Amino acid sequence: MLNYYEELNVSTRKSFEVCDITDGIAAVIKASGVLEGMVTINSMHTTCALSVNENEERLLEDIRNFFLTLAPPDASYKHNDLHLRVDIPPDEPENAHSHLVAMMLGHSETVAVHNGVLALGRYQSILMLEMDGPRERKIAVQALGAK
Amino acid sequence: MLNYYEELNVSTRKSFEVCDITDGIAAVIKASGVLEGMVTINSMHTTCALSVNENEERLLEDIRNFFLTLAPPDASYKHNDLHLRVDIPPDEPENAHSHLVAMMLGHSETVAVHNGVLALGRYQSILMLEMDGPRERKIAVQALGAK
Amino acid sequence: MLNYYEELNVSTRKSFEVCDITDGIAAVIKASGVLEGMVTINSMHTTCALSVNENEERLLEDIRNFFLTLAPPDASYKHNDLHLRVDIPPDEPENAHSHLVAMMLGHSETVAVHNGVLALGRYQSILMLEMDGPRERKIAVQALGAK
Repeated sequence: MLNYYEELNVSTRKSFEVCDITDGIAAVIKASGVLEGMVTINSMHTTCALSVNENEERLLEDIRNFFLTLAPPDASYKHNDLHLRVDIPPDEPENAHSHLVAMMLGHSETVAVHNGVLALGRYQSILMLEMDGPRERKIAVQALGAK
Repeated sequence: MLNYYEELNVSTRKSFEVCDITDGIAAVIKASGVLEGMVTINSMHTTCALSVNENEERLLEDIRNFFLTLAPPDASYKHNDLHLRVDIPPDEPENAHSHLVAMMLGHSETVAVHNGVLALGRYQSILMLEMDGPRERKIAVQALGAK
Repeated sequence: MLNYYEELNVSTRKSFEVCDITDGIAAVIKASGVLEGMVTINSMHTTCALSVNENEERLLEDIRNFFLTLAPPDASYKHNDLHLRVDIPPDEPENAHSHLVAMMLGHSETVAVHNGVLALGRYQSILMLEMDGPRERKIAVQALGAK
């Protein structure tokens, strides 16, 4: 059995941003030598999510509008009452909505690997969704399988 | 280590439809010979999702109503302005809401396998949710583990 | 290859409750002996979900408020018309909203294991979300990998 672990670094530039990390994950699969197996991809952050969907410019705007309408940044959230929380860093942001959207989208994706490639359909990309940027983000990737 | 990959074909007949694919996944586990391990199940489409929940007729209607109310098909979406997009097929549908619901539900499920069977509770089924049918859909299934 | 399966028992005390099960999953990883691999964690229930996010007291209240506003318990759902359903247990609750929220959050999480520990970031916890308690819940955990 082969196993291979790597952490990808992704720099985001906006508060809400969708980054296509498909090529980075494909490179990990290649480095792992896994031909048959699976890869689990984990956001290591609570305000940054993963999803598999289409990387189409106008759809990415819909995604932003849709999720920020469901969980508006300026609504009232208890997590944003920073003065009522203990033990918080001096630069703690008001980001309750980011946590909620991240939970709806999910922190992980697991994708099958077959013949050495990701089992993705024609229009599918692996997307990292930044909800509270700009930030430096880390994505943990573990491939497991056989050569 | 055992590994086994298969793509299930599912034909849908409605625009929004929930298909119970538990038996198909159980058959893959049996064919794989895996007794202890896990199976990852991936929708290979961006408007078709996977979920594990109860296959109860009236609940399936609630699921449809709930998600189509959250993301109404006839709301305004940038992805649906087909004349503003480049490089699209002639039969491109207006399906932004399908992408958004698919992202909320998720494109993959990973289920533990123990004693050769899926670790599902009494009321749990593996559901494929069609959001933009009728279509021919493919579900990638990779089982990994030991005999 | 190592594999190790365990079912965690979690008792909940409220109708909606978030339980941090990170320590329980870490103990499974330790018991498994897996140093490099992955663990899949599955709720064995249709009204109980899993998520990876921050265990911050006030955020947990936001999570409850947010999801119960999206899917209000007292809205009209077909699944709750118990007299129209067949073959239901005498103590069947009116819990359609719990199913819908559980589907948005997801029934499973898969987390990479590296150097014998879960690949979680500083603020991440593995959370079990009870939607229809109080109940006795079971979480299936399967670790797979190498020592």
